[in-house]
Amino acid sequence: MTKKVVVVEKILSTNDRIAAENRSIFDEAGIYALNLMASPGAGKTSLIEHTVKRLIPQINLAVIDGDIASNIDADRAEKAGALAIQINTGGECHLDANMVNNALGQLNLTGIKLVIIENVGNLVCPASFQLGTHKSVLIASIPEGDDKPYKYPGMYRGVDALVINKIDLLPYVPFDMAYFRKGVEILNPGLITFPLSCRTGEGLESWIDWIYQCTLSKNL
Amino acid sequence: MTKKVVVVEKILSTNDRIAAENRSIFDEAGIYALNLMASPGAGKTSLIEHTVKRLIPQINLAVIDGDIASNIDADRAEKAGALAIQINTGGECHLDANMVNNALGQLNLTGIKLVIIENVGNLVCPASFQLGTHKSVLIASIPEGDDKPYKYPGMYRGVDALVINKIDLLPYVPFDMAYFRKGVEILNPGLITFPLSCRTGEGLESWIDWIYQCTLSKNL
Repeated sequence: MTKKVVVVEKILSTNDRIAAENRSIFDEAGIYALNLMASPGAGKTSLIEHTVKRLIPQINLAVIDGDIASNIDADRAEKAGALAIQINTGGECHLDANMVNNALGQLNLTGIKLVIIENVGNLVCPASFQLGTHKSVLIASIPEGDDKPYKYPGMYRGVDALVINKIDLLPYVPFDMAYFRKGVEILNPGLITFPLSCRTGEGLESWIDWIYQCTLSKNL
Repeated sequence: MTKKVVVVEKILSTNDRIAAENRSIFDEAGIYALNLMASPGAGKTSLIEHTVKRLIPQINLAVIDGDIASNIDADRAEKAGALAIQINTGGECHLDANMVNNALGQLNLTGIKLVIIENVGNLVCPASFQLGTHKSVLIASIPEGDDKPYKYPGMYRGVDALVINKIDLLPYVPFDMAYFRKGVEILNPGLITFPLSCRTGEGLESWIDWIYQCTLSKNL
């Protein structure tokens, strides 16, 4: 087990080095970069579709889509109007900095102001791998239940913003918002949250404003 | 990377050896064992609650609950009437055979006929770790979306039964059942499925019958 720990530590420090390299690529190009994480099916791709449609043409953006298999997500981001590239991890349960580095090498970043990286659907492993982005965003989803902060603290602890998606389902599922928010507040005091519904569009404006301001701040 | 691969292979072969040991423990005690896997919030604990309530007292069962943190799930299983033990993986994104082996050492298995192991909420990593159970069951959840078999093939490929939970939400979310089932059929032809709702109780009978028959078959 000790050997395992040493190897894992080595992988993580290599990852941090490449993440720093990615950050330099973003900074030199004047690009703001987001790492978007969530469980499978929480709405990462739907949120990206809305974001792309509302930000273009003011902000040109690129999407890097991570999945175990398939091109479904990159196809959806591209259809919405973004420059998109799919990373198939082939079994790996998270994106790492090297995968993102390879994807950046294949993208023409000219004119791009915002890069959204859609991580693999997973509420555990992505939290351990820095990608070099400026901010990490987690999407929680109402039908996942209100106990997720308590059960997956690592993910809630490390993010800079929290989208609470599928609020249109609140009438149909048991979800105690106060209990949920209490768990979030313990792990990540003062975390900015965006309750919204990608299905109905409710609450999307605040999210779009935030990401727009973040991107602008990079280019002042 | 080669070193990483060698270490990972070694971990997996050690895991298989301990999984075989777990299987012997189950078999010698006349216990039927299930590995229950799903995304976070798909309804593993709710399904276990219903299963415990309906099977007891005909079948005494124990629940081994895996989570990154908290005792929420084991408390729920215990409250429903099961003998329950919580494994906190402390960051590991899946259960492995050794964690289950340790839990089995702490449980009094006298009179127990069925052990349900609730894996960590994760649609990727648990598929790679045999636990020594007789069957693996995956829960899909309607609000996760109909594309999950295509995006997480490893998990769908390796299971013996599929519960499709939260069918009560079908009127409120976009979900093409034919597209979903086509993906499942490609990966796992003829897979037995149980569409149901833990919230309304619809469809639960078939699931309970199946697990009851599985358990009885072990004790003939």
